[in-house]
Amino acid sequence: MLTLLYAGADAQWPLYETALPDAVASLGLDAKLTREADPKDVDYIIYAPNGPISDFTPFENAKAVLSLWAGVEKIVGNETLTQPLCRMVDRGLAEGMVEYVLGHVLRGHLGMDRHLLNPDAKWEQIAPPLARDRKLVVLGLGELGTACARMLKAINFNVHGWSRSEKTAARSGDLDALQGVILHHGPDGLETGLQGADIVVTLLPDTHETLDLMNAERLALLAPGAHLINPGRGVLVDDTALLAALDSGQIGHATLDVFRTEPLPPEHPYWSDPKVTVTPHIAAETRVESASEVIAQNIRRFEAGEPPLYLVDRALGY
Amino acid sequence: MLTLLYAGADAQWPLYETALPDAVASLGLDAKLTREADPKDVDYIIYAPNGPISDFTPFENAKAVLSLWAGVEKIVGNETLTQPLCRMVDRGLAEGMVEYVLGHVLRGHLGMDRHLLNPDAKWEQIAPPLARDRKLVVLGLGELGTACARMLKAINFNVHGWSRSEKTAARSGDLDALQGVILHHGPDGLETGLQGADIVVTLLPDTHETLDLMNAERLALLAPGAHLINPGRGVLVDDTALLAALDSGQIGHATLDVFRTEPLPPEHPYWSDPKVTVTPHIAAETRVESASEVIAQNIRRFEAGEPPLYLVDRALGY
Repeated sequence: MLTLLYAGADAQWPLYETALPDAVASLGLDAKLTREADPKDVDYIIYAPNGPISDFTPFENAKAVLSLWAGVEKIVGNETLTQPLCRMVDRGLAEGMVEYVLGHVLRGHLGMDRHLLNPDAKWEQIAPPLARDRKLVVLGLGELGTACARMLKAINFNVHGWSRSEKTAARSGDLDALQGVILHHGPDGLETGLQGADIVVTLLPDTHETLDLMNAERLALLAPGAHLINPGRGVLVDDTALLAALDSGQIGHATLDVFRTEPLPPEHPYWSDPKVTVTPHIAAETRVESASEVIAQNIRRFEAGEPPLYLVDRALGY
Repeated sequence: MLTLLYAGADAQWPLYETALPDAVASLGLDAKLTREADPKDVDYIIYAPNGPISDFTPFENAKAVLSLWAGVEKIVGNETLTQPLCRMVDRGLAEGMVEYVLGHVLRGHLGMDRHLLNPDAKWEQIAPPLARDRKLVVLGLGELGTACARMLKAINFNVHGWSRSEKTAARSGDLDALQGVILHHGPDGLETGLQGADIVVTLLPDTHETLDLMNAERLALLAPGAHLINPGRGVLVDDTALLAALDSGQIGHATLDVFRTEPLPPEHPYWSDPKVTVTPHIAAETRVESASEVIAQNIRRFEAGEPPLYLVDRALGY
């Protein structure tokens, strides 16, 4: 019987406790998943950076470290790690992001909050405009931004998309996915894209160019009362400028999933601002079921001597 | 010159006063739209249940009654009506309905309310399952139900659809729109469709067969904690049974847009139940421009002896 050591976050243990053994058993493997074992007995380490392990030295018989996270930047430089390391590539991640973005875009578009918080039982028949009459811009057209822009177009929003460099069929295989999306690029295109937009979705990576991208000047370009949705990276938003724009009404609502410090500290003004919705970095979480399938599949491959999926090249760092 | 009698709500006259004659003129027809005419001179009645007409006897030369409303339950049993009756199928209506249904389905799916009402600033990283892991059933596959089912499938839900009689390519031109949707019909199919569903969307017409369709027995078929969304007709839901199922937890949340009495009386328990979201019959408002185009198109068809659009079968009731 194989011994699988769960070394992820405590909070997620109840989820993996059943899903992972189920996934492993469904591939015909005999294994037990545990949180405590003699290090010498551990065959596979199921790892996350917010779990208990930072020194891999005692796990001298472990055949591989299987990461629950897509990003491995916190472990790839760990010199105590001598075993093969596999990262997580979860199909659920892009799907989850699209669902989060569509849901919160529609929530703002439909003005749902008015009906959820209606203590005076007001019956006010104000129908929202149609999605086709809302200008929406997605900043960042990578895998996630493209998937979101595509579906937002499918449900009829007037969708604009911005990328740092021009999207061309030669460079991006996925130009078809952006059919009907009005494309912009570069600094001038950013201004055109933001100008008069009712809804902005920020899905850019964290680079020196994107730091504080949504600053006072750019927030002022949007339609008054616009809805900002940031499921990308905390650093994309200038927090001070956003709070001021919410106060003035230039931004009507902000839905934020990512922050410079996480968890968002209890005293942070975002928590108490009624125009801000805080979600706890869940827009694109690894999903337990699909992640468990990937882990199980890799254990099967290691046991069968087959090449594993998503093996990390330690020199490249991913 | 044709005489068109506007017999809709007073409040909407200023909107239709120009939009409808414009639409009719654009098809090359010579007609005048009026609110007052000798009944014998009226060629077409533009009708809404909240307008002035309930006795159609005097309109002996009218060629058709063209409803501004999609729902015709308030007129279909009117024995003074001997002319053909056409209901409204408004593109804006379907678009608005799809946006409402997608928005509230995703709201429940993502568990948004937890983040909107979070006074203790709890940072709980519980990601929802993916849409593909949610069984969702749309009851009613007319124009609106089909449009909703199609888009819900496009965003990956495990979508089931139920109709009274079987959808066949021969009878429904729109079977392509339902690709990927698991179809059920008839009484047995209803049970299969509801069984274990996490989300139910009711989009059926108001007929004697659909009265109290969602009763205690059928609510019990759903997955525990299911989300019921009713943007169809108030009578589709047995209110007493729903309140009991909410209390027991069998239904986790209900989002209701339509009610037996509207506006929903302030003392109705739906208003104060934290598990119920009341929206004030706004899911599908007819939009004046697109509705006027449908009316104009039907007048042209009647005048040319062509079969009209959306002719009501008085025996079926829709």
